[in-house]
Amino acid sequence: MSEKDLYEKIVELAVRRGFFWQSYEIYGGVAGFVDLGPLGSILKKNIENKWRQWFILKHQDFIVEIESPAIMPKAVLEASGHLEHFTDPIVECLRCGRKFRADHLIEDAIGKSVEGLTPHQLTEIIKENNIKCPSCSGQLSEVRTFSLLFRTTIGPYSENVGFIRPEAAQGMFVAFKRVYDSMRGRMPLGIGQIGKVGRNEISPRQGVIRLREFTIMEVEFFFDPEKPKCPFISEVENDEIRLITAENKLKGIKEPITVTIKGALEKGYIVNEWLAYFMALAQKFVRELGIPFNKQVFEDKLPHERAHYSSQTFDQLVKVSRWGWIEVAGHSYRGDYDLSRHMGFSGKDLTVYKQFSESQEVLVEEISLNHEVLERSYPEEYRKIVNAFSKRDKNIMLAELKAKGYIELAGKRLGPEFFKIAKVKKVVKGKRFIPHVVEPSFGAERLLYATLEYAYTVKNGRVILRLPRDIAPISLAVFPLVSKEPLVSIAKEIYENFKKEGLRVIYDESGNIGRRYARADEIGVPLAITVDYQTVKDNTVTIRNRDTWEQVRAPIKEAYVKIPEYLRYRLEFKDLGVPLKK
Amino acid sequence: MSEKDLYEKIVELAVRRGFFWQSYEIYGGVAGFVDLGPLGSILKKNIENKWRQWFILKHQDFIVEIESPAIMPKAVLEASGHLEHFTDPIVECLRCGRKFRADHLIEDAIGKSVEGLTPHQLTEIIKENNIKCPSCSGQLSEVRTFSLLFRTTIGPYSENVGFIRPEAAQGMFVAFKRVYDSMRGRMPLGIGQIGKVGRNEISPRQGVIRLREFTIMEVEFFFDPEKPKCPFISEVENDEIRLITAENKLKGIKEPITVTIKGALEKGYIVNEWLAYFMALAQKFVRELGIPFNKQVFEDKLPHERAHYSSQTFDQLVKVSRWGWIEVAGHSYRGDYDLSRHMGFSGKDLTVYKQFSESQEVLVEEISLNHEVLERSYPEEYRKIVNAFSKRDKNIMLAELKAKGYIELAGKRLGPEFFKIAKVKKVVKGKRFIPHVVEPSFGAERLLYATLEYAYTVKNGRVILRLPRDIAPISLAVFPLVSKEPLVSIAKEIYENFKKEGLRVIYDESGNIGRRYARADEIGVPLAITVDYQTVKDNTVTIRNRDTWEQVRAPIKEAYVKIPEYLRYRLEFKDLGVPLKK
Repeated sequence: MSEKDLYEKIVELAVRRGFFWQSYEIYGGVAGFVDLGPLGSILKKNIENKWRQWFILKHQDFIVEIESPAIMPKAVLEASGHLEHFTDPIVECLRCGRKFRADHLIEDAIGKSVEGLTPHQLTEIIKENNIKCPSCSGQLSEVRTFSLLFRTTIGPYSENVGFIRPEAAQGMFVAFKRVYDSMRGRMPLGIGQIGKVGRNEISPRQGVIRLREFTIMEVEFFFDPEKPKCPFISEVENDEIRLITAENKLKGIKEPITVTIKGALEKGYIVNEWLAYFMALAQKFVRELGIPFNKQVFEDKLPHERAHYSSQTFDQLVKVSRWGWIEVAGHSYRGDYDLSRHMGFSGKDLTVYKQFSESQEVLVEEISLNHEVLERSYPEEYRKIVNAFSKRDKNIMLAELKAKGYIELAGKRLGPEFFKIAKVKKVVKGKRFIPHVVEPSFGAERLLYATLEYAYTVKNGRVILRLPRDIAPISLAVFPLVSKEPLVSIAKEIYENFKKEGLRVIYDESGNIGRRYARADEIGVPLAITVDYQTVKDNTVTIRNRDTWEQVRAPIKEAYVKIPEYLRYRLEFKDLGVPLKK
Repeated sequence: MSEKDLYEKIVELAVRRGFFWQSYEIYGGVAGFVDLGPLGSILKKNIENKWRQWFILKHQDFIVEIESPAIMPKAVLEASGHLEHFTDPIVECLRCGRKFRADHLIEDAIGKSVEGLTPHQLTEIIKENNIKCPSCSGQLSEVRTFSLLFRTTIGPYSENVGFIRPEAAQGMFVAFKRVYDSMRGRMPLGIGQIGKVGRNEISPRQGVIRLREFTIMEVEFFFDPEKPKCPFISEVENDEIRLITAENKLKGIKEPITVTIKGALEKGYIVNEWLAYFMALAQKFVRELGIPFNKQVFEDKLPHERAHYSSQTFDQLVKVSRWGWIEVAGHSYRGDYDLSRHMGFSGKDLTVYKQFSESQEVLVEEISLNHEVLERSYPEEYRKIVNAFSKRDKNIMLAELKAKGYIELAGKRLGPEFFKIAKVKKVVKGKRFIPHVVEPSFGAERLLYATLEYAYTVKNGRVILRLPRDIAPISLAVFPLVSKEPLVSIAKEIYENFKKEGLRVIYDESGNIGRRYARADEIGVPLAITVDYQTVKDNTVTIRNRDTWEQVRAPIKEAYVKIPEYLRYRLEFKDLGVPLKK
């Protein structure tokens, strides 16, 4: 059978009706970039707004949204570790000069995963298996790393290197202290952001699934590591979740287990309550996009599969037809990695102070100079270094040593051997700490694609896009039964009235009514109102249900009030009017 | 008086309460980048949504929104002319190596405008006036042009140069045909977009006013140049508008005249009805942000002041305290410049077909080869070129010749001398044309700043941010009179109920009620509800007006219904309840 697969059908529909298409088509297209068309851009905004409902507005007293730039100076990504770690292995053909992502090339050739291997190991596998250029069969180069950061220059000085951010997160870490202060020192504190990021993939080949520029929706949730409990966990603790646990993966079992949030926490599958809480919300959010429970799974990533900053990460996967299980979100426990690093690299205090109700004995790390080593190594500069040390904040120096592996004093980079670090018991009235971070992070375009795929249905040979009615790009279609007066004027007035209420509406009078219904069904318009000669007499209209093709009759006045409620899932279709027989 | 100026006061408030601050502060900050904090990001979204109401949703049947990438391949910006023209003059100190924007440096030194002069002319002025480096008094270099495009590389091949888009417009031009098809060939057709753009300014020094990364909100409005009338012009023709006309500028008169839209069209001040229509909407939109009529002006740009693509441009200016008149929008008549160029450079047909109701005689441009010249110049390749010419679309070749100055045939770049272009009369049933474009284009961050400035007022020594209530980041504050039960529980329930209705609400119980009102006033919360002991008895609450500090008493049930209406300007404050004496 050479029938189109579902992916192709959706792409065909998406291009024809204006959901998405490859960018820069008239110039031959550029892989990894898509335009969202008139319908796609609304659908994406609706998905973003739904995310905002779940991840920001639900807890708007302690989760806020910010907007930080996509262009970042080098210092930020140096501190975050992206400059060093955010790479893919690349290999070049020594004959034709083509470049390939080395791990994908090897996996295609030998049919097994090489995730987490070093460039050296990959080079060895290429040699052992005598893998050649898939394009010209030429000899391949050594594998090296390729930075996935889009690099640029900020301003006229070539040394001011900048990058397009690969994640929104760093904008939140760098601004953490400002947001924290503007929120009057609230802890826990979530900082969310929806924004574009860039990842300079070597050769993306999966259309809208793997983009070089895409939209991230993420929350960095900061909390006191000594208070890791989530007070809302009871709301979700009985929710079931499908987990591929690390334990099972190590045993070779890739089937998910179904477990409650409570159970997953008790068994230690999920290491933190906030992480579990956001995973529970994430599952509900994705279900509201029309992707059912059994088409979602959370996969615990093994240490070598995780990003450099993470101590636990679950990929939230969704099943799609052509690509199998694709990641739509990552749920990471980032610990204090990012804030510590930024504190160490920037030399700015990013700790938070907490007051105890009464004085307590706590264990405090204290740093002092190892004078012996120092004097021996730098007899000339010794006094200057001692002086510089005395002027610096000790906590920041600790962070600097941890982040950079050295502390810079009087122009010298001094490694751990120059310092003594002791844990000291102290009785204090409060203390400073670096908050820990849990991060739910979604990719909007992938969710958009998955949403379309789950909405795509065929009935009597015709396509119906059964989008959830609160995210459908167009909420309502208004048709005159025939393109004649007074039906046209009445229908146009109804169209205008719904528009004024803030609804997205289409008016259509071309072609027969059946064809108009079909056009509306294909883009997922949940309801269609038809104005007919009866309307002229009694101001009632027919309202048609996209999914069932059932119809009800209702006074137009009632429809103005009830349809917005129906679209918010506060009424059912039968509540909209009196059923009509087909 | 060393009192802070209004700009400084607003920046102080913005930083402290979370509207905006310079990005990357912990790394010393990077000029030209700002973060929008928790309140700023909501305010910006509200401004964007208001823009969307005026520029997209009002005409949603023929103006649609899309989303295209910020990263663009070189081909697009080569065709658009940005690679060549989107530059600023730069000069370098030969002693200290510092770089300056040459025109600004000269203007600071000699106190008059040098807009539109060439690098050579600027160099001459520097020599004549013996202008030195403002930093070290060193000798300055020749003036050269500096590209304002942020440059990067797409993928692993260094020759695949890309840029961050300097305007959203090009994404719409490149996608025009796709959108046009998905809209079933609708003409006129508006394509709008809200998105980030990058302009690599040499040395931006005006905080949030001049950014290297900012948000553009723009519509490219495509219409048939033979049908330039706007059917909605009567809705706005009596609106007054303040214009600085080109005529007056040439006479040295910089004062605006006040004229109706109708008058401005009749007198030829504005060359196109659609341009005038969008300017009228633009003025209303900006007024709804709180910026009054007499603080707005539209300045006609003289040819040397206009961008390379424009045949008429009005800058929409708004008066702000420190910076004087700043541009918040540009309204340009771009003609067929962009589509022609992309047609010529891409070789793809971007024309639109129109059917005549009956056959008409039209004048058609026809291109043919100048065989004499061709045979003389390329005797060897002559046949191949003739053959290549015969296979190409004639309209596209015309566009190519116009855009590039040559047509590439059989590997040869042939200039105009190789072709004959004739205007031929033909009787046809329809014809192809390149739509013309009118573009209203706003900068969101500047509008946000101007909005804050016009909202900033002082009453009894306290700051009130009198933001229009439909764009205020927080719509409502809920306070228990004192932090005691049952007031706290009742207030929290009210807070939750308004949240469920989709409102942005704050709950605050810390400090005395006066201080809480003050905190809410300072961030522009339009209404505050106070729960007191009377509430316990009769379920009524006090509602306080931010601007007048008047209070009314109302049953909480009524408040749930009326407050959302008040926020949409459908009710007045007195409608909310029974007035309380102060």
